[in-house]
Amino acid sequence: MKITTRITELLDIEYPIIEGGMAWVGTPKLAAAISNAGALGTIGSGNMTPDILREKIKEIKHLTNKPFAVNIIMLNPYVEELIKVVIEEKVPVVIFGAGNPAPFIKDLKDKNIKVLAVVSSDNLAIRLERSGVDAIIGEGMECGGHIGDVTTLVLIQKLTEVLSVPVVAAGGIATGRAIAAMFALGAEGVQVGTAFIATKECEAHQNYKERILKAGIRDTVVTGVKLGHPARVIKTPFSKKMLKLETNSPEEAEEMLVGSLKKAFINGDISQGSFMAGQSAGLVKEIKSVDALLKDLMKEAFESVEKLTRKFSIKETSKT
Amino acid sequence: MKITTRITELLDIEYPIIEGGMAWVGTPKLAAAISNAGALGTIGSGNMTPDILREKIKEIKHLTNKPFAVNIIMLNPYVEELIKVVIEEKVPVVIFGAGNPAPFIKDLKDKNIKVLAVVSSDNLAIRLERSGVDAIIGEGMECGGHIGDVTTLVLIQKLTEVLSVPVVAAGGIATGRAIAAMFALGAEGVQVGTAFIATKECEAHQNYKERILKAGIRDTVVTGVKLGHPARVIKTPFSKKMLKLETNSPEEAEEMLVGSLKKAFINGDISQGSFMAGQSAGLVKEIKSVDALLKDLMKEAFESVEKLTRKFSIKETSKT
Repeated sequence: MKITTRITELLDIEYPIIEGGMAWVGTPKLAAAISNAGALGTIGSGNMTPDILREKIKEIKHLTNKPFAVNIIMLNPYVEELIKVVIEEKVPVVIFGAGNPAPFIKDLKDKNIKVLAVVSSDNLAIRLERSGVDAIIGEGMECGGHIGDVTTLVLIQKLTEVLSVPVVAAGGIATGRAIAAMFALGAEGVQVGTAFIATKECEAHQNYKERILKAGIRDTVVTGVKLGHPARVIKTPFSKKMLKLETNSPEEAEEMLVGSLKKAFINGDISQGSFMAGQSAGLVKEIKSVDALLKDLMKEAFESVEKLTRKFSIKETSKT
Repeated sequence: MKITTRITELLDIEYPIIEGGMAWVGTPKLAAAISNAGALGTIGSGNMTPDILREKIKEIKHLTNKPFAVNIIMLNPYVEELIKVVIEEKVPVVIFGAGNPAPFIKDLKDKNIKVLAVVSSDNLAIRLERSGVDAIIGEGMECGGHIGDVTTLVLIQKLTEVLSVPVVAAGGIATGRAIAAMFALGAEGVQVGTAFIATKECEAHQNYKERILKAGIRDTVVTGVKLGHPARVIKTPFSKKMLKLETNSPEEAEEMLVGSLKKAFINGDISQGSFMAGQSAGLVKEIKSVDALLKDLMKEAFESVEKLTRKFSIKETSKT
């Protein structure tokens, strides 16, 4: 059930699957479990200070010898210090999100750190390819957390056409069939977020996991549009309040957002917590171990390609 | 480049491709060209009166002997009369959109008319399957015109899991790779809209076609959210005005909408016309004949599956 692509080779992993950058959710424990199982685990540095990030990196190094990533969002006010930390700690892979990391790419690559960037548009992707990024993660607006405005299906069709670097598809991927589908578009890896929340190793509060299990595909909503930072979350009393406040009292809405992800992750608080998740929450049906989830995803991806091969009557002789 | 699925067998077509229901755009000429080329052309009845629909059906019968469809939207005040017309005219396929057509399914099927329905949620799909619909078209929110809130990737993963009838994927499909991708998810057909606007046989004003050619994947916007009927259109001076008016003066906005699709289609009027199109407008690069477009789509779909077969090292011996 292994597969070789430019992404598996670049990142030195068995499965072409990357853990999406998730603040709070992306702990060393979860990321290490994912790396140990053969994919790429990712510490979501969110709004961490440099000291805390260093601690988390030391922690994951105790838990795995496999490659892992640190996700850094450009909104973090300590970006430059975080980059110093990942260089000092010799982190194998850095994944940038929520902004344009072009100025930092060269420094990291000079230190032999692989650099990927999450984008929601083809324009930024092209600029980052020119700046030397190793691969582009195209994230559709069905993803959880901060979102763009193009869907995964459209974005990946476009990115695989205009880029030379390998493309990783993100947003809405929670089945092995979706992995096969993204590969059909030309992607060479996928990023999975929401499905990893519903794993045994994820340290989120049980309420968070249960909200994902119970959600249908229409049970997310986009908060923060009016505030200029749209984020997809599971519908809860919190999200309802947020949507009202955004219109009526943007300042109160901003206040309510502070610490809201922590309140979801640590306390499972549905009235104060922001349960970030993608539309694919509606596809997740049970809590699995990370290892079982990855094996099931890959198994289904292979089965899907086998069916396609038969359906399109592709002959082995057409292989070159 | 042919392929057999439950959809091609149900509809008696060579290619598993259906023309999306497009008011104004879906003329007998375009639909007949699509049917003649081996896919399923669709007359978009939009807000036609029964008499006009009958005329259009007579027209397409002069242009093709192949199966074709009539798309009927539940919002049309003449729905019952339109259904009488399609029965009297022995239309081979009826595709319902924008509402719940359950009460009409049995009558049509009793007359040997195939009935499909466009849905944007799994719940409605399940209800319609129980009501006897022959197949479900799941349409993601990247599509042009009236939209739901779930993306194609997520919706099709869900529908192929919960339905027994065949699933057709719609929204964001403008390349052969996307056809292969939707088949990987378990779909047995696709619906294409926007890409058919950019064909020689399409009778839309040249400005409409050019707007699609020039559009990037982020050049559509959703108007009408505030009015309760969201529709995806290409960004134009019209869409900018609409978005402002919706908030400030909903009644004026509703007035501005009247006839706006006609003004785009007939006059190519970018200040008064509503240029409905999907995000896939950003993937369309040239005006082709319908026949060339269909052949290119199928060729690319086959090439994509061939690459997948090699990538996943599927052996011919795994065929059963």
